[in-house]
Amino acid sequence: MNAQLKVVHESLPASRKVYLEGTLHSGLRVPMREIALHASAGEPPLAVYDCSGPYTDPAVVIDIERGLAPLRAAWIRARGDVEEYPGRVVQPVDNGVGAGGKAAPEFSRRYSPLRARGLKAVTQLAYARAGIITPEMEYAAIRENAGRRQGEAGAPADGNSWGASIPEYVTPEFVRAEIAAGRAILPANINHPESEPMIIGRNFLVKINANIGNSAVTSSTAEEVDKLVWAIRWGADTVMDLSTGRNIHTIREWIMRNAPVPIGTVPIYQALEKVGGVAEELTWEVFRDTLIEQAEQGVDYFTIHAGVRLAYVPLTVNRVTGIVSRGGSIMAKWCLAHHRESFLYEHFEEICEICRTYDVSFSLGDGLRPGSIADANDAAQFAELETLGELTQVAWRHDCQVMIEGPGHVPMHKIKENMDKQLEVCGEAPFYTLGPLTTDIAPGYDHITSAIGAAMIGWFGTAMLCYVTPKEHLGLPDRNDVKTGVITYKIAAHAADLAKGHPGARARDDALSRARFDFRWQDQFNLSLDPDTACAFHDATLPKEGHKVAHFCSMCGPKFCSMRISHEVRAEARAQGMRDMSEKFRAGGGELYVPADAVAKAAAGAKDA
Amino acid sequence: MNAQLKVVHESLPASRKVYLEGTLHSGLRVPMREIALHASAGEPPLAVYDCSGPYTDPAVVIDIERGLAPLRAAWIRARGDVEEYPGRVVQPVDNGVGAGGKAAPEFSRRYSPLRARGLKAVTQLAYARAGIITPEMEYAAIRENAGRRQGEAGAPADGNSWGASIPEYVTPEFVRAEIAAGRAILPANINHPESEPMIIGRNFLVKINANIGNSAVTSSTAEEVDKLVWAIRWGADTVMDLSTGRNIHTIREWIMRNAPVPIGTVPIYQALEKVGGVAEELTWEVFRDTLIEQAEQGVDYFTIHAGVRLAYVPLTVNRVTGIVSRGGSIMAKWCLAHHRESFLYEHFEEICEICRTYDVSFSLGDGLRPGSIADANDAAQFAELETLGELTQVAWRHDCQVMIEGPGHVPMHKIKENMDKQLEVCGEAPFYTLGPLTTDIAPGYDHITSAIGAAMIGWFGTAMLCYVTPKEHLGLPDRNDVKTGVITYKIAAHAADLAKGHPGARARDDALSRARFDFRWQDQFNLSLDPDTACAFHDATLPKEGHKVAHFCSMCGPKFCSMRISHEVRAEARAQGMRDMSEKFRAGGGELYVPADAVAKAAAGAKDA
Repeated sequence: MNAQLKVVHESLPASRKVYLEGTLHSGLRVPMREIALHASAGEPPLAVYDCSGPYTDPAVVIDIERGLAPLRAAWIRARGDVEEYPGRVVQPVDNGVGAGGKAAPEFSRRYSPLRARGLKAVTQLAYARAGIITPEMEYAAIRENAGRRQGEAGAPADGNSWGASIPEYVTPEFVRAEIAAGRAILPANINHPESEPMIIGRNFLVKINANIGNSAVTSSTAEEVDKLVWAIRWGADTVMDLSTGRNIHTIREWIMRNAPVPIGTVPIYQALEKVGGVAEELTWEVFRDTLIEQAEQGVDYFTIHAGVRLAYVPLTVNRVTGIVSRGGSIMAKWCLAHHRESFLYEHFEEICEICRTYDVSFSLGDGLRPGSIADANDAAQFAELETLGELTQVAWRHDCQVMIEGPGHVPMHKIKENMDKQLEVCGEAPFYTLGPLTTDIAPGYDHITSAIGAAMIGWFGTAMLCYVTPKEHLGLPDRNDVKTGVITYKIAAHAADLAKGHPGARARDDALSRARFDFRWQDQFNLSLDPDTACAFHDATLPKEGHKVAHFCSMCGPKFCSMRISHEVRAEARAQGMRDMSEKFRAGGGELYVPADAVAKAAAGAKDA
Repeated sequence: MNAQLKVVHESLPASRKVYLEGTLHSGLRVPMREIALHASAGEPPLAVYDCSGPYTDPAVVIDIERGLAPLRAAWIRARGDVEEYPGRVVQPVDNGVGAGGKAAPEFSRRYSPLRARGLKAVTQLAYARAGIITPEMEYAAIRENAGRRQGEAGAPADGNSWGASIPEYVTPEFVRAEIAAGRAILPANINHPESEPMIIGRNFLVKINANIGNSAVTSSTAEEVDKLVWAIRWGADTVMDLSTGRNIHTIREWIMRNAPVPIGTVPIYQALEKVGGVAEELTWEVFRDTLIEQAEQGVDYFTIHAGVRLAYVPLTVNRVTGIVSRGGSIMAKWCLAHHRESFLYEHFEEICEICRTYDVSFSLGDGLRPGSIADANDAAQFAELETLGELTQVAWRHDCQVMIEGPGHVPMHKIKENMDKQLEVCGEAPFYTLGPLTTDIAPGYDHITSAIGAAMIGWFGTAMLCYVTPKEHLGLPDRNDVKTGVITYKIAAHAADLAKGHPGARARDDALSRARFDFRWQDQFNLSLDPDTACAFHDATLPKEGHKVAHFCSMCGPKFCSMRISHEVRAEARAQGMRDMSEKFRAGGGELYVPADAVAKAAAGAKDA
């Protein structure tokens, strides 16, 4: 196994991993990344939210073959509501092998899975409802305040939150209350103790998800672990393993054991592999078995397309692009072939019981999401959404955590309706959207067509944005595509945080802008979402080290650098006592505007001169 | 001169240049690009707006050293209101040579410039006000209807135009009326007869501008002409030459003579070169001389930073990023150094007279635009905007066409205020914005941070979007950056057109989505904004020709292709007569939703089973 060789295990430039402690729970070590600034800045390091896990901590020994340390193991056991049991025996069909093809190497470490003891509910929702603030909740709360520490000294946050209730400071109790209300989820399977707790909800920072996974056509186990580490390095808050090919169980095991972020899956993909890819042959039993298999491995959230009901399938017949969700199309095909209601829908309460046993969160899939501008906000999409709202209530009755998946392809003027309707029919359960793409005409650039929609719907209230890479519609993303997708979605999520008025969200913008205005080039690179690219772009024309302190760049050259001139203007203005003038101007209500006729007169005067 | 060797002179894939005729004016040949579809589509070719000029017409002989044919020459002369005159003599200082460095080769063709005869106003605004529909107006009107032809057969346009008045069909009279009202401009210097007329206004398709130009640090004449042709190939509606280095006059001459799109400049850049880069030494006389020099060459619009008034400079002193407009910082420095009002402001009526003589449109510069999220929508920015509104009235009194430049860096929640305020204080003159960038934290990706803001402000009413490339803040864009910037901004502009509800804007989305659903891969590539990249991305994993007709891609592989399954679902549903069911459902008002208690009951039933 050479995955180890390929995983990046180093800090980001000028960055240091620091750990914050909790107050309710002893021994919490909540990671932040501190970005050091040049001494001339006279500023403390900037702490930013960090989902890269131990891979960016040089003090941690990384061994992909052993996996990460089980951060949450003691917390889980201390609650006294779980038990070890032998677990399901892994079968050849779990990996689709036997039909030929090479088996991937098994993960070295073996363990017995945990499950709830008796009828205990071991979900964060159950604890929250019982008034318990778990270590997971305190951990997640501390992370949310990263920017707020800076924010206190900085500019006041403004913004329009569209009805979200964003607190000045996130307390552990606030996290508990939001989970209890169903407005947030903390995906944390008891069999994924390696995960660093995080919170997904409208009143928290907007999160992003990166999809990885092999397909029947390409990629290997080593590649997928590498993509996982790569995706979280650049900021993926959760990762979905969408593998559909061979070795699906083994690849997932490698991913789970090395993932410090929650991992989501779409269990129907593996179930379909188990029945040879023939949708009609899917059964509740095969599906149920797959859920348990994945829950025992530690999958933190399941996409379940239980909203694709038999009666909605006809609504998709006259669409321009039919059904574009893989899970949705599989279920639609099953329903039609058997001419009966979806087994996911009919067995939904049993699915809830499984999720409750391991604390797997629901991600109720939008199997009928629009795949084109033409199909946006149509009857099929909204019929399914209503059903997802009904299923949310069912899941909540079972103490299960729920989020709702959303589209897809939606033109800008139809985005807000999606958010408003979701809030209304799904009881404010967190919304988790793919994009949406705001036009269909740019394959190759759908990270951009969708970032526009993602930023907007994030502003309007979506809790987590599922990334789209440049390869969308064209092929399986490679490592570079994963990075581009993640950075693009960090932009969308952060733009949304700014617009919502998250306290402290602006701290990083302001620090970077100050660095820019001070010609602290290295600080500007280090504070950016992608220091490597920023530096490389600068160095493409001005590679010398001396240029990193130059008061210009190749864009305008030395004479035309507006910021250099602006410094001279500032010095001159200050020399002329204009700072006072500025203050007087503000104090006086800014009445410096010259009426239009005075302008004309001035201009006329100039003409006469 | 080897520029000729580098300019791309070929059609886009599967595309054919076609020319439409007018009805009011004989001999009009208005270009469109027709994209042919595969025979199996059963669809006519899709006609799209085409700003690539003769370079994509294989029937035209391209010779960069001779320049393009003077399309509008006869129209201009036929109006009988212009005269040839010897023009200003080009001086060494115009090219900044003499201080060493190599002079660029001069453009071969010499000509005498035109100017208005006597006190005639030769602007499209003057003609429009006089009730004259010029050939330029009819030409621009025909172009606007590209998508509308398809739209007639397609889906009805919906959208939210935020108060814009978008007609079902653009008539030449509508173009005239919009220009007369000041709500649109048709930039068309009488000395740039090579340009293909186009219209910029809130009630027309959203346009984009690409900036090119050398700087003191890098690039050559040949590179700039190549960038021009490259930028319009991918969809730039206008191009600004922002050159600031040596050979500035000569480079511009090569660009003008080879440009089928309107060219804009910022004359203060050249004026500053003429005084050795020392802002304080700028004079009205040098500036005036530069305006005439550039007007004689045919520049179609001038950015004039006349809104940067002495009194506003103090407002920028406490900003995080001061003044980030090059022109703005130069003027601020001049004002402070002399402690007097801006000569651009004082001589504004004289500038109007020059613009009126050649029909140079104003692009009133936002010299105090915010350069960071922290400075967005501040007192300095809005003080300047008020002045731009006053100057708009002055320019209109002189029959001059005007658009207004806008920011910059603006978080999403402050974007609409920019648009609303601009409409209010500038009398609905077209808005022309740079981005805006919605966060400061992603240098290297500012095409994306800004595309989010650009799409939104375009939807809200901005008439033209100035692109931002990945190199923004870091260095001078190269050829690849130009393409990325243009494609990104075509996405933003088109997303805005869709959201505004432009009739027929959706024709291309729908055609591409149909191709996607039909697995017509080649059509999908050809219909996209960047066929080369779409095809290359697909071929990265599935390079064989056979894969271009495959009913899957590497993203999901054959078994999991939702669209393949969806076709099966559709066939099955139709076999089951579900199309009728779908129609019944719609006719019945869509009352298929199952009440929540029924769901619970069904689930409970399943559990018992």
